Amino acid sequence: MPDTTPRIANLSDHVGQTVTVRGWVTHVRSSGKVAFAVIRDGTGVMQAVFVKTQLPPEVWERFKELTLETSVYVTGEVRAEPRAPGGFEMGVVGLAIFGSSPLDYPIQPKEHGIDFLLDHRHFWLRSNRQRAIFSVRNEIEQSIHDFFYERGFLRIDTPILTAAIGERSGLFSTEYFEEGNAYLAQTGQLYGEAAAAAFGKIYTFGPTFRAEKSKTRRHLTEFWMIEPEVAWNDSADNMRLQEDFISYIVQRCLERRGAELRELERDIAPLERVKAPFHRVNYTDAVAVIQDKGSETKWGDDLGAEDESLLVADYDRPVFVMNYPKEAKAFYMKENPEDPRTVLCDDCLAPEGYGEIIGGSQREDDYDKLLRRIHEEALPVDAYGWYLDLRKYGTFVHSGFGLGLERTVAWICGLPHIREASAFPRMMHRLRP
Amino acid sequence: MPDTTPRIANLSDHVGQTVTVRGWVTHVRSSGKVAFAVIRDGTGVMQAVFVKTQLPPEVWERFKELTLETSVYVTGEVRAEPRAPGGFEMGVVGLAIFGSSPLDYPIQPKEHGIDFLLDHRHFWLRSNRQRAIFSVRNEIEQSIHDFFYERGFLRIDTPILTAAIGERSGLFSTEYFEEGNAYLAQTGQLYGEAAAAAFGKIYTFGPTFRAEKSKTRRHLTEFWMIEPEVAWNDSADNMRLQEDFISYIVQRCLERRGAELRELERDIAPLERVKAPFHRVNYTDAVAVIQDKGSETKWGDDLGAEDESLLVADYDRPVFVMNYPKEAKAFYMKENPEDPRTVLCDDCLAPEGYGEIIGGSQREDDYDKLLRRIHEEALPVDAYGWYLDLRKYGTFVHSGFGLGLERTVAWICGLPHIREASAFPRMMHRLRP
Repeated sequence: MPDTTPRIANLSDHVGQTVTVRGWVTHVRSSGKVAFAVIRDGTGVMQAVFVKTQLPPEVWERFKELTLETSVYVTGEVRAEPRAPGGFEMGVVGLAIFGSSPLDYPIQPKEHGIDFLLDHRHFWLRSNRQRAIFSVRNEIEQSIHDFFYERGFLRIDTPILTAAIGERSGLFSTEYFEEGNAYLAQTGQLYGEAAAAAFGKIYTFGPTFRAEKSKTRRHLTEFWMIEPEVAWNDSADNMRLQEDFISYIVQRCLERRGAELRELERDIAPLERVKAPFHRVNYTDAVAVIQDKGSETKWGDDLGAEDESLLVADYDRPVFVMNYPKEAKAFYMKENPEDPRTVLCDDCLAPEGYGEIIGGSQREDDYDKLLRRIHEEALPVDAYGWYLDLRKYGTFVHSGFGLGLERTVAWICGLPHIREASAFPRMMHRLRP
Repeated sequence: MPDTTPRIANLSDHVGQTVTVRGWVTHVRSSGKVAFAVIRDGTGVMQAVFVKTQLPPEVWERFKELTLETSVYVTGEVRAEPRAPGGFEMGVVGLAIFGSSPLDYPIQPKEHGIDFLLDHRHFWLRSNRQRAIFSVRNEIEQSIHDFFYERGFLRIDTPILTAAIGERSGLFSTEYFEEGNAYLAQTGQLYGEAAAAAFGKIYTFGPTFRAEKSKTRRHLTEFWMIEPEVAWNDSADNMRLQEDFISYIVQRCLERRGAELRELERDIAPLERVKAPFHRVNYTDAVAVIQDKGSETKWGDDLGAEDESLLVADYDRPVFVMNYPKEAKAFYMKENPEDPRTVLCDDCLAPEGYGEIIGGSQREDDYDKLLRRIHEEALPVDAYGWYLDLRKYGTFVHSGFGLGLERTVAWICGLPHIREASAFPRMMHRLRP
């Protein structure tokens, strides 16, 4: 693509040339005869150097108008300067102000509260920290697409607007013409299963929704999920796919986003250990371990965030907790033939206490058992007709999982709260901007 | 990834070996002593050959149980066979039936009506035609990610749930806790503009929604849009980006999805001509051309589908129609300094009558003009506070566009109706499956 505007990220191609850079002022200082402005253009930062004796008087005077986030065109010669932010500086010969910036620009170089920052998310995104986070998020997303593309999976975009299916509580609903209510998808999995029977190996990559009054550091009402589904994979195949997948993503971020992880002050030693095989522990054994450590969780309960932290403390890599009790998990998981109280499933827990990033399972392929589970959960059988069809006509072994994107970003970036992993996070009390 | 299950797409790696393939029966025929079953596993099709004299009697008998979409494990030696569907066949030594398929399997080898097929979309996807469409869709999607990744754009996932912003008619709404109504996004663009100021070059890739009672062959209520936004690009830069982008996608499909385009009987000659530069015509000139051809459209009207077809008939490549009248376009488009009755925008029309696939524009960067337009359109000014902020503090030249994914798939695949471009299409009367 012919890019007529040099971007700061590409300044190394312009050393010794006189170019015009367009961007925003993030910092100014002046010694009386030499002045500096740090310019940010979204791709990087560059120091612009103004020398009074070498400039027309009106350019020197114009420097004084530069306030935080003033947008400018600065023209000058590019030089490498290891001590400058970004590694390059410009000997300025010309300066034009495109957009002034009043002195009340909301985000100043001082501490702001989280609500204030979220209210001004459109400006907060301009910080070096946020740029680093979204560079890592971008790398994670591209690496996910590359992983599946290279392995012959087809991406399938499953519907957001659905009739009554999926998990039932915590649904957002909307009127849908004369069809009654539509619900915002909590998962694309059921559609993914139909697509796996058609295309063998598929994945989804889209937003999902939970209308839950949850205020933890690990929940958003709108978040993105990646849900592969593979025909003829059993639960063991499914976990191998998960560990290969997670390892690929993490190693790719380490290879290509080292600078951003340093900006985030992320300790990368725990990330470097994220390689297959991951640890595997049965749910029943996991409960015994955490009970020994003082948890009051009993066999049959789902594991809470604290239980997960107790468990992963013993391990240097992600851990699969396998084969939960039926009542703790969704209706579509396959009954474990070796212990029918449990299902063939796994949760993948990230190290360092970041908690569950994946939930996966082999799917129930027996028509009668699935129908019984639908009745037991009092789900609307009619709405599941097409889903049951997949078991009625040529049923098949199949497995899949869901990766929570924002949780993965928070883990790899080392963020204490998931809200920073989303450009415009949606939480119970947060719908704006 | 260690894939323990050979897939039909990879049979070329197994010629001469005895393997087990798992899949579904799509066709059977028998001559009394030799029988054939075509097996589909989602990655391809393979012919399985049963020779009575070389098989245990129970395997030969079991063949008779094979009905359409029975799922099976077939074991045998793989051989190349150019005359067989898919290019390979298997000399069967073993057959196990995993899931039987009753004789009333809904989709039979005969003509079915479109409503019936859409009611059984979960099975319809299994056809060769649908597999070809979704292979092309997958290629388009991956090529979009690759295009932007290679050029240093950051992908930003903008929110689906929004407070009252964006275009106003045709909104789906849902209750959002104590925050009042949330609306499903019709575009991510406004958020994309904030992100472009933070990150320079960004794109969105997500579902968008229109609650419109439209029943044309070009409208869905839920569809995916790709919306790049670039700081410091003007309208001319924006069109150059669009033509590079579209050319990249089309050429990539031609390079890598030739087999699928043949399956779809797509004439690829018009696609081979899709290379930059595209044709450019001003709106005012376009109206004169179509009026000459009999259209009753007057200056000031938006162009309808028929007008677009009249116009593109003169051209061998996509056409940009530029600089529409202000009243025909959205409030955020930048006033054209050379003719303030118009705005700096473009629609990109696909060849062969497939119509508009892109709408793009330079964005209004003047605070006062934008505020005036918000008032003129009676939009809620409060909800646009953060969007106006982008013009108040260091405003910037910027441009972007939105590509409709399903329209692009329909065009490249040569589909007469957009519904086939979506795995589970959503239309006014269609919310299931």
